[in-house]
Amino acid sequence: MPDVTLVEVGPRDGFQPIGPFIPTAEKLAIIQGCVAAGLTRIEAGAFVGASAVPQMADAEAILAGTLALPGADPQMLVPNARHARRAIAAGARHLVWVISVSEAHNRGNIRLSPAESVAEFTALLPELEGIRLRMNIATAFDCPFTGRVAPEDTLALVGQLAALRPDAEYGLCDTTGRADPAHVAELAAACRASFPRVAGWAFHGHDTYGLGLANIMAAHGAGIRVFDAAIAGLGGCPFAPGATGNVATEDAAWMFARMGLSTGIDLGALRPVAERAARIPGGSPGGRVRQALAARPAHLAA
Amino acid sequence: MPDVTLVEVGPRDGFQPIGPFIPTAEKLAIIQGCVAAGLTRIEAGAFVGASAVPQMADAEAILAGTLALPGADPQMLVPNARHARRAIAAGARHLVWVISVSEAHNRGNIRLSPAESVAEFTALLPELEGIRLRMNIATAFDCPFTGRVAPEDTLALVGQLAALRPDAEYGLCDTTGRADPAHVAELAAACRASFPRVAGWAFHGHDTYGLGLANIMAAHGAGIRVFDAAIAGLGGCPFAPGATGNVATEDAAWMFARMGLSTGIDLGALRPVAERAARIPGGSPGGRVRQALAARPAHLAA
Repeated sequence: MPDVTLVEVGPRDGFQPIGPFIPTAEKLAIIQGCVAAGLTRIEAGAFVGASAVPQMADAEAILAGTLALPGADPQMLVPNARHARRAIAAGARHLVWVISVSEAHNRGNIRLSPAESVAEFTALLPELEGIRLRMNIATAFDCPFTGRVAPEDTLALVGQLAALRPDAEYGLCDTTGRADPAHVAELAAACRASFPRVAGWAFHGHDTYGLGLANIMAAHGAGIRVFDAAIAGLGGCPFAPGATGNVATEDAAWMFARMGLSTGIDLGALRPVAERAARIPGGSPGGRVRQALAARPAHLAA
Repeated sequence: MPDVTLVEVGPRDGFQPIGPFIPTAEKLAIIQGCVAAGLTRIEAGAFVGASAVPQMADAEAILAGTLALPGADPQMLVPNARHARRAIAAGARHLVWVISVSEAHNRGNIRLSPAESVAEFTALLPELEGIRLRMNIATAFDCPFTGRVAPEDTLALVGQLAALRPDAEYGLCDTTGRADPAHVAELAAACRASFPRVAGWAFHGHDTYGLGLANIMAAHGAGIRVFDAAIAGLGGCPFAPGATGNVATEDAAWMFARMGLSTGIDLGALRPVAERAARIPGGSPGGRVRQALAARPAHLAA
C-alpha cells in the first residue's frame, strides 16, 4: 500500500470543460499513460447527458478501454439513477455519485435539490449492491453562487449518506478552489471524528487560487490519504481566464515524493503523459512541475 | 500586531532578474502602492555590484524614496561589508545580510566561503550597532548545485550567527523552491527549539514547483509568523521557463484572509499594484489570485 493515493481525475474533471472534442483514442492513450505511470485509480469519464457535457459522450468506449488496461480501476461519475444504470449496464463496477451540499449548486448541476438527490440515491441502493462507491460531496466548503458553506451543513449531508453506505469513500470537494487550509483541516477532522464507521475519505481540490497543494497538505494533516488530481492541471474553463483546474497530478506526485511518501507513481513515466495532456487543443493546463523540470538540466531534474 | 506579517520582497528578489531596466520612478510607484496597501515591511532593493546586478544600480534613490513614505520600513539586502557600509551611508537602518549554507552557492553568489562570510560579518559588527538585521540563510533546504542541504549544516550556520546577533530576525530561505512541507516544518521547528533566544524567524520560499503556499503553511504550523512574498509572483528568470519567483504576495494575502488571519493588507488596494507589477516588461509574473479574481464577477471577488 502506498502512503498516499492519488486518483487521476483529469479524464473526467479535466477534459469535461474542453470545447473541441478530444478523440476517444487520444483520451485512451492518456489514460493508458497514466495507468502505466502508476495512477491505477482513474476517473475515466462521466455518464451524463451528452447534450449537457458533449465531451463525455464516449463514456461507454472510454470505460471499456480503461477496463481492458491491466491494473486499472476506473471510476465513472454519475449524477443520478438513470445515468448510474447506464454506467452499470456498460460494465462499471466503481461509481462516483456526486451531490452538492449547496441547494443552488445541486439544482444547477443536477436539477434536483440535495434532498431529492439523496432520495434518488436511496431508491437506487438495491441496484448498487457489489458496486464500489465514491460519494463526492460537492460544495463541501464553498458554493459559486452562495459563498462559504457551513460545516454543519456538510456534516449533515455526509451523515445521511454515510448511514446508507458507510463502506463508501467520501470525497470532500472544494468545487470553487476557495477553501483554505484551516477550513480543510477543520472539516476533514470533523468528518473523520463524526463518522468513524466510514470506510474512506478523500479530498478533491482545485488550484484556482493557488491553494491546491496547501489544502492537500491540510487534509493530509487531518488524516486523509486519498487525493484527486488532474494530469497537467487540466480543468480550467477556457472562457474564464484564471478559473483553473484541479491540482496538477505531477505537482502532487512531486510534492509527496520530495516528502518521502510513496504514491506508487513513476514521475519519469508521468512527465511525457502530462506534456501530452497539456497540448490538448482547447485545454487550459496548470501546475508548475512540468515547466520547472523542463527548465532544469537532466541530472538535477530528479 | 497582525497575526501574520508579509514582507514584500518583489522590489529586490522580483525585480533583480528582470533584464530591461525598470525606471526608478516605476519602481518607487510600485513600492508606494505596496506600502499604501499595508505592506510596510518592504525589501526595497539591494546594495550589490552594479555590474553583477544592473537592475539594483539605483539602490540609493530607491532607499531614499522608500524612507520618505509614511510607515514604510525598508530593508536593503547586502552581500558583504563593503556594500553594507554603502547602504548605511545611504541611510539604511534595516539590512538583510545574506549568507548561504552551501559553500558552492555562497561562492557563486558572494565569492566567499560561508566561513569567510561569517568572519566578514563578525568584523563588521561594531558598525552594525543600531542597525536592525534580517539574516537570510540561503540554501537552508536545498542548493541548486549540490541538492538537499542537511538540517545540521543549516543549524550550525544559524548557531554561529545567532551567537553574534540573537536580536536579528533569521530568514530560512528555500532558494530553489525544492523544499517540501515536511522539510520546512522539521527545520523550522528545529531552529526555534535550538535557538530560543533568537528574536524572530521568517520563511522565504519560492513557488518554482508550486509548493510556495504549502511551505508557508508548514512554516506557520511550526510557529513562524513572518513570510517573504513578491508582488505578482515576480522573480522568475525570463531565460529559464518555469524558474518562477517568490510566492505571489496577493496569493499569500488572500490565503491568510480566507483563514481569518490578519495581515494588515488591503487586498483591494493591492490588486491594481499587482496588475501593474505583472505588466513590467521582461518580467515573468506568477501566482493565481490575480487571474482568479479578474475572472469573477465583482460581487463574488471578495
